[in-house]
Amino acid sequence: MTGAARFEVLSSAASNGGTRARLGRLTLGHGVVETPQFMPVGTNATVKALDPDDVAAAGATIILANTYHLYLRPGHERIRRLGGLHRFMAWDGPILTDSGGFQVVSLDHLRVVDDDGVTFRSHIDGSIHRFTPEVSIAAQEALGADVAVAFDQPVYPSSARDAVADATARTARWAERSLAAHGRADQALFGIIQGGVEADLRAESTRAIAAMPFDGLCIGGLAGDETPVQRAAALDVVVPLLADDPRPRYLMGLGSPLDLLEAVELGVDLFDSVLPARVARNGRLWVPGGRLNIRNGAFLDDPRPVQEDCPCPLCRRFSRAYLAHLFRARELLGYRLATCHNLTFTLDFMARIRAALRSGTFPVDRAELRSRAGQESRSEAAVKSA
Amino acid sequence: MTGAARFEVLSSAASNGGTRARLGRLTLGHGVVETPQFMPVGTNATVKALDPDDVAAAGATIILANTYHLYLRPGHERIRRLGGLHRFMAWDGPILTDSGGFQVVSLDHLRVVDDDGVTFRSHIDGSIHRFTPEVSIAAQEALGADVAVAFDQPVYPSSARDAVADATARTARWAERSLAAHGRADQALFGIIQGGVEADLRAESTRAIAAMPFDGLCIGGLAGDETPVQRAAALDVVVPLLADDPRPRYLMGLGSPLDLLEAVELGVDLFDSVLPARVARNGRLWVPGGRLNIRNGAFLDDPRPVQEDCPCPLCRRFSRAYLAHLFRARELLGYRLATCHNLTFTLDFMARIRAALRSGTFPVDRAELRSRAGQESRSEAAVKSA
Repeated sequence: MTGAARFEVLSSAASNGGTRARLGRLTLGHGVVETPQFMPVGTNATVKALDPDDVAAAGATIILANTYHLYLRPGHERIRRLGGLHRFMAWDGPILTDSGGFQVVSLDHLRVVDDDGVTFRSHIDGSIHRFTPEVSIAAQEALGADVAVAFDQPVYPSSARDAVADATARTARWAERSLAAHGRADQALFGIIQGGVEADLRAESTRAIAAMPFDGLCIGGLAGDETPVQRAAALDVVVPLLADDPRPRYLMGLGSPLDLLEAVELGVDLFDSVLPARVARNGRLWVPGGRLNIRNGAFLDDPRPVQEDCPCPLCRRFSRAYLAHLFRARELLGYRLATCHNLTFTLDFMARIRAALRSGTFPVDRAELRSRAGQESRSEAAVKSA
Repeated sequence: MTGAARFEVLSSAASNGGTRARLGRLTLGHGVVETPQFMPVGTNATVKALDPDDVAAAGATIILANTYHLYLRPGHERIRRLGGLHRFMAWDGPILTDSGGFQVVSLDHLRVVDDDGVTFRSHIDGSIHRFTPEVSIAAQEALGADVAVAFDQPVYPSSARDAVADATARTARWAERSLAAHGRADQALFGIIQGGVEADLRAESTRAIAAMPFDGLCIGGLAGDETPVQRAAALDVVVPLLADDPRPRYLMGLGSPLDLLEAVELGVDLFDSVLPARVARNGRLWVPGGRLNIRNGAFLDDPRPVQEDCPCPLCRRFSRAYLAHLFRARELLGYRLATCHNLTFTLDFMARIRAALRSGTFPVDRAELRSRAGQESRSEAAVKSA
């Protein structure tokens, strides 16, 4: 443990309605994160279309940035020279960087995994690079986020068992090397549990990673092409094994409100995803109980806000008609306003979950939260798996 | 005169250093506009990449919206039903709409001008439309800006004299029809002086339009392919003829700081242009005495703000390095921040002109203002004439 993160579980079993949901507080160098919590993604050191004030106004208290992207452009050493990621992007709150494992391993381009690391081609210019646990940790130390993450080898739920077993064992070895390589005392380090959807491999990975002195535990490989049943089954393996573990549990890559609620009920504390922002840029607005596709012609004449009681900059000032116009005219303001809204909706949804856990009303509020989350649209699912 | 606009000239000849520069105050339904003043352009009912708070923070007190664009999309009647342009775009300050004359006549697509109006094809879907003075005024009344503008037929400075003479005579007839068609008492109406760069036709147009009861006088056809010498010569014809005229003079389409200063010295009160915003989206930042091209690789390592003493959201929080990164990564935030900066620079430049006129220091401050304006770059000139 680095001492750079402190996590407290605040709720009692009585408040969770028979689920494993829990209320927590994660204290990091740049601030406190109430959990369960969602982290907007700032891939290129910017949450797409937003400025830091927009991100904070949406309710974000921690954001994620991608090591793979920043390593390639503008370069982690450049960001270090410019004073680190917080100063570079003018975000004074907590930041978590991922390890690049997911991006590197999922690249369509050339990539070769060996026991020492991964060789891959840049998606920007085709140049050849190599990530090892040591390279990833060094890049994350240069970026200087509050939380760094161990370098791992994710697999797809559809991968063959042999491949999953190999990757899971390698992830454990890389976790050790990540720990050994990490020296920055003001930065927490989280490990990543893999194991695909094979119950025994998940359990093995959970035990292996949990045995190491990480500040938190990521659960990887569960926001891809698995079914909700497979995801729930994997969490049913992981979380009971961590029942007495005092560290936060972070399921990487999940962002649809219903998915978030279900994972909270299964004991997850932290999430990140590009989903709310990406579907917003495609004109899909999340509202209580449903979705609006602002490209629908009917909205051109609709004077109402996207969501009546929403405090976001879109809903406070503008009509559905105006947003529909901006999208048709491809005006940049439309992408920003829609993103503000979906992130506000998502972060408000997490705040409602926390409020229910805090007040002990989670057992009765679950149905309302489920209804508020709405069903995922087919187009949203398509965006998600893209 | 509609009574919907009141203009006062506040400066004395003693303060203008032998030029025709003047300080003024234009009072409109939604607020007061100090002149000389620059109007950012909100073509599609949005100043590209900005929200209304950004526009106000940049120092704008009046904006321009394009009747041609809003007529086609989302439709002026739709905007009327939605409560008018101010409410639609959430801008509570003064708005001026142009008449569509410039867009319609400069369309590359089919357009046929006859004595009654102009038939043209939409640039969006190729559909056929017809603008007459009556159609333009009705559209502008539906939009409900503080100031509407008469429908005119602009010409290029390079047009043949016969064509200029025809268009100038037609513009005068259309001015009469625009006045007759205009009935909205809470909306001012400005006339447009044409005449190209032919001194006698400019004079004739000035006398004809000034003889009509407009609330203000636009000077058209002087922000295209004419030389600065031709522009100055035309203003030297127009302004002396209007010397005792109590109405504001608005040169349409000019936006480069040096051009603005020179036109102010020749007696112009109001300006509009897409230029500062358009060059910003191309990565050209206006700074005192020069230009930065943020795509220049050297800026990737430059920790300084774009302009040390600038109060804009870009310069207050972010480095040149960050902006250079955003442009390379094509992140939307970059376009917004760069636009905020160039508009802040432009509107601050106008404020400095007004301050010099107010304090009587314009004669001595002219040299410093000229130096601050900087020389127009070649790429900027290319963008301007595009």
